[in-house]
Amino acid sequence: MSEIAADDAGPWLSPEDLDFVRRKVPILYIDALPVQLDENGELTAIGLLMRANADGHITRALVSGRVLFHESIREALARHLEKDLGPMALPQLPASLTPFAIGEYFPTPGVRFHDERQHAVSLGYIVPVSGDCQPRNDTLETTWLTPTEAVLPEILADLSDGHAALLKQALASMGKS
Amino acid sequence: MSEIAADDAGPWLSPEDLDFVRRKVPILYIDALPVQLDENGELTAIGLLMRANADGHITRALVSGRVLFHESIREALARHLEKDLGPMALPQLPASLTPFAIGEYFPTPGVRFHDERQHAVSLGYIVPVSGDCQPRNDTLETTWLTPTEAVLPEILADLSDGHAALLKQALASMGKS
Amino acid sequence: MSEIAADDAGPWLSPEDLDFVRRKVPILYIDALPVQLDENGELTAIGLLMRANADGHITRALVSGRVLFHESIREALARHLEKDLGPMALPQLPASLTPFAIGEYFPTPGVRFHDERQHAVSLGYIVPVSGDCQPRNDTLETTWLTPTEAVLPEILADLSDGHAALLKQALASMGKS
Amino acid sequence: MSEIAADDAGPWLSPEDLDFVRRKVPILYIDALPVQLDENGELTAIGLLMRANADGHITRALVSGRVLFHESIREALARHLEKDLGPMALPQLPASLTPFAIGEYFPTPGVRFHDERQHAVSLGYIVPVSGDCQPRNDTLETTWLTPTEAVLPEILADLSDGHAALLKQALASMGKS
Repeated sequence: MSEIAADDAGPWLSPEDLDFVRRKVPILYIDALPVQLDENGELTAIGLLMRANADGHITRALVSGRVLFHESIREALARHLEKDLGPMALPQLPASLTPFAIGEYFPTPGVRFHDERQHAVSLGYIVPVSGDCQPRNDTLETTWLTPTEAVLPEILADLSDGHAALLKQALASMGKS
Repeated sequence: MSEIAADDAGPWLSPEDLDFVRRKVPILYIDALPVQLDENGELTAIGLLMRANADGHITRALVSGRVLFHESIREALARHLEKDLGPMALPQLPASLTPFAIGEYFPTPGVRFHDERQHAVSLGYIVPVSGDCQPRNDTLETTWLTPTEAVLPEILADLSDGHAALLKQALASMGKS
Repeated sequence: MSEIAADDAGPWLSPEDLDFVRRKVPILYIDALPVQLDENGELTAIGLLMRANADGHITRALVSGRVLFHESIREALARHLEKDLGPMALPQLPASLTPFAIGEYFPTPGVRFHDERQHAVSLGYIVPVSGDCQPRNDTLETTWLTPTEAVLPEILADLSDGHAALLKQALASMGKS
Repeated sequence: MSEIAADDAGPWLSPEDLDFVRRKVPILYIDALPVQLDENGELTAIGLLMRANADGHITRALVSGRVLFHESIREALARHLEKDLGPMALPQLPASLTPFAIGEYFPTPGVRFHDERQHAVSLGYIVPVSGDCQPRNDTLETTWLTPTEAVLPEILADLSDGHAALLKQALASMGKS
């Protein structure tokens, strides 16, 4: 999550305030895994964002971002999906807010997943997408992979530890492990 | 479930064999609650089937039916949804087969839910529907109700005990209770 | 949640800083519903905390509290359960961190649940308890109610709106609705 | 599941009738993964049954078995856990009957998991165990493995395909993948 998600502090929060808050309380995130399903609901493809970071290295990520003050979880999901997949992706947000997984990230290395910036807790959702994804912001491309391709070591190595674990949990929850 | 679902014995099973089997093992069913969601995934309407039974009394039901021999759960869901909602309903089958609820029906009154025909176990799913539902077979109509309308006593009274409980469980799992 | 939970700012946070942070980001909480189960796992009783608030009025609540900076969700659950039920309650914390429900509380009335102090998001867990609960801090008593008693209007009226909804969702997820 | 679970036809069913029924309808099973948790609910060990099959080869399995006619899912879980782990295992059956996974087994090879005897659908549960497990019937031993040991290739190879997948799904749902 950490090195990848663009950080929009939002209307209530200056960058300095965000730095302060991040050393005071756990910060709430959503993570969304875009998927393509066939007409029977069977998983056919997984969408991973591909980005180039500051030193030109390629990284991959799930759709991920902070829940802002006074923003509902559904609004945060819709906003981050549109930000990363574009306005034509037609994501189907879940009827139930119960996440398929919870991620915990700590600023101290060695305890669960690591995020040097903060203590973060993320709610993970699987989001079927039926439209066209278009690169936005710093995303180079949305790559669609089969369930088998998505867990190849070279793909998992491009994800942060937390996102790699979340991807494996998502596949398991869809019966693909 | 019992008095409502049309019983198609399927290719491997004569009606006499089905009667026999029903006194020997639990019979596997699926129950599906059709829902309409807004673009943020928030529940806007619930679809209940309305039928007239043999004596002209109106009853309501979820989409429900048996899983046939050698039929997958996804195939059974797709078949029963098409049978009851028509071919243009465009149901979005779930990415995960984990049901939101399990129903148990016993032929002996007083133990959980009652189905005089059999011991049945049903897997319950919430299925977003984005197309047009058309009456089929013995279904008079698919009625779309708001979450508030769906739990009015006069509506719940038209459902079997098992389906009324399942409907309340589904609403709770979507944060509407 | 709001008017009930004692507020321990924790080691990283002065009361003034907590006030500041609460106007900047959503605050993460856990809610836990203590339950007693029989040997087959069937729900037999639900534990609600009973407290007298400042003006002597009786209120009821689930176990609830903030997740502190650098505290894991499991640690927060264990800490709040011990704080409210005492050290001999023997709670069985869940093997999976996936909550049975998510609660959203906003400082503006009319949007979902209301918490005048903050925007809060709570992760809800059902926690079987097999030991003895002892009143602690400002808790007068832990009252054990049958599933039927727990949803009587006079009981639900003593809970905050958010906790009443969570209780009904928990009962539904255990097949009691 | 197939080659391992002892088959008790139960009081309503002769072996001949069971053979007949198995070619007519899907047969309902439960699968239970015994686990040991620490006081915070964190997974510490996974219990796998070890058995010698007819030709002396060692196989491993989850607790697994059929749901009998007129038997509730909770009763089936309790019966199979006692049958395989002995009467002192003190399993904590789940408060909610919603399984963490559904397994589908077909008599035709190549479609999902394979069970030459039947079309079976199994409901998977994670069951914390706090007592002593004693070998029973044809079980040689209950082996407790750490989450890391449990997914070693040589362990997974001793499980049926369906149980290996279920084990990986269970670990993922507990955040260990």
